[in-house]
Amino acid sequence: MTRPRGTRPSPGAGPGTGLDRLALNQATTERWTVAEAVDGCVRAGIGAIGLWRRQVAEAGLPESVAAVRRAGLHISSLCRGGFFTVTDPALRAESLADNRRAIDEAAALEADVLVLVCGGLPPGSRDLAGARRAVADALDELAPYAQQSGVRLGIEPLHPMFCADRCVVSTLGQALDLARRYPTEAVGVVVDTYHVWWDPDLDARIAEAGDRIASFQVCDWVVPLPADMLLGRGHVGDGYIDFAPIAAAVDAAGYTGWVEVEIFNERVWDAPGDETLRTMRERFAAVYPVSS
Amino acid sequence: MTRPRGTRPSPGAGPGTGLDRLALNQATTERWTVAEAVDGCVRAGIGAIGLWRRQVAEAGLPESVAAVRRAGLHISSLCRGGFFTVTDPALRAESLADNRRAIDEAAALEADVLVLVCGGLPPGSRDLAGARRAVADALDELAPYAQQSGVRLGIEPLHPMFCADRCVVSTLGQALDLARRYPTEAVGVVVDTYHVWWDPDLDARIAEAGDRIASFQVCDWVVPLPADMLLGRGHVGDGYIDFAPIAAAVDAAGYTGWVEVEIFNERVWDAPGDETLRTMRERFAAVYPVSS
Repeated sequence: MTRPRGTRPSPGAGPGTGLDRLALNQATTERWTVAEAVDGCVRAGIGAIGLWRRQVAEAGLPESVAAVRRAGLHISSLCRGGFFTVTDPALRAESLADNRRAIDEAAALEADVLVLVCGGLPPGSRDLAGARRAVADALDELAPYAQQSGVRLGIEPLHPMFCADRCVVSTLGQALDLARRYPTEAVGVVVDTYHVWWDPDLDARIAEAGDRIASFQVCDWVVPLPADMLLGRGHVGDGYIDFAPIAAAVDAAGYTGWVEVEIFNERVWDAPGDETLRTMRERFAAVYPVSS
Repeated sequence: MTRPRGTRPSPGAGPGTGLDRLALNQATTERWTVAEAVDGCVRAGIGAIGLWRRQVAEAGLPESVAAVRRAGLHISSLCRGGFFTVTDPALRAESLADNRRAIDEAAALEADVLVLVCGGLPPGSRDLAGARRAVADALDELAPYAQQSGVRLGIEPLHPMFCADRCVVSTLGQALDLARRYPTEAVGVVVDTYHVWWDPDLDARIAEAGDRIASFQVCDWVVPLPADMLLGRGHVGDGYIDFAPIAAAVDAAGYTGWVEVEIFNERVWDAPGDETLRTMRERFAAVYPVSS
């Protein structure tokens, strides 16, 4: 019997008690293999992991499934599908085929969600509206396949500074508008504090999202951003984001799933993985403060 | 008799014909003094200039007014006031006093608008909602003074990547919500393509803005951004923004004012000013394409 997607593995713990919901997104320990990350989670008492396709491919899909099951971990997400905005027909067919493979992998892993980063403007294009339509068209093709496969797609709005080159879905509201065209169990949205913290409509959109929230990820906004903006994220507490109200809003919307720490940062990657996981645990109190 | 604010100085030209609306924002030729920038505009046949307070202070306010008047130029904006989010009472009083001086300067210059960059999170603070309230509070104090002085304030939403450190007003919708609390002639909004191009609600918000649009600024989004994000802007055509539909929407909303090119970019600053103005003129065809 598979556990209902998004539930926590410690049924005794009350909702929102914190560490029992902490999950490692593998991007945070970029240099660990699947086996190393799984072992690290076990040592740190972290109950779930978000895996990345590259590392899963390196380890082998059946081997990854086996390693995770043996350790008793839950798979909170698979990262990632998407990149839907290519216009060349051959490249588009290739992208859709790759996304179907990603759905198959998410099904094999019984991941709570397949995270989608939808793609930026195609090379040489300035047609933002067209790129956004291409995302909707690709979802039309993939959502039924995901649903048949028992996989939930999670549309992740990326910070507007990635609109040109990585993701034309820039706000939670926009992700919700896309997701609502499909059944809730087939398509949800990903709330990542790094991407949405600035949004003046954030509280309203989270409340509206309700059971569409398929994943909740945390990391902090640090300033100055490094030259490579992709690697400018910080541990919870290192930056400007007030996590507790966002987490409370996500919970109030009905989300009871895992909370992944996903940090892209060279300095975090250079640190020993066990130290990174210790820091994650310590800092998580800022996400779910223990009420006195 | 002063010209109605925001009108173009060439009444013979039809609306939207392009170059007759082109204005130089002085930030684009950062190393030119007011006198040099004014002379450059005259040589290039550019009819208006957006001035910066630092350069105006260096040249002297009466001298700046005289130089601009002598050349027959219009002043499309004064940049800038704002930075309202300081919490220390003494610093807050100082900020408000400085903004009153900026209003006085804008009045002396008969600038179409005093551009406001509202400020980021105060040092050590994560209270984004509080910082946003501080902006509204400061506007409550300044709007009546601006109106008495015949100066229009322009709230500029800055790209969400500046939310932490420069401006907690991140969307045009948010700027409009703030502006609407005051008379239209006292407080408007600034539409800068660089800051708003990604916004999925942009068309709707521009239409809604109507005569609240106090300034329209253009420059392009280039990738990768340089280490200093403030200096990552490009000449029209160098990046990802589709200018013509945005300009058409701004015009359809009723804006008939100047269109400033404002580019923060070290390489542009290193180029000879006359060359920069020539490039501005050439590239402006992408903002208002001549219909065949």
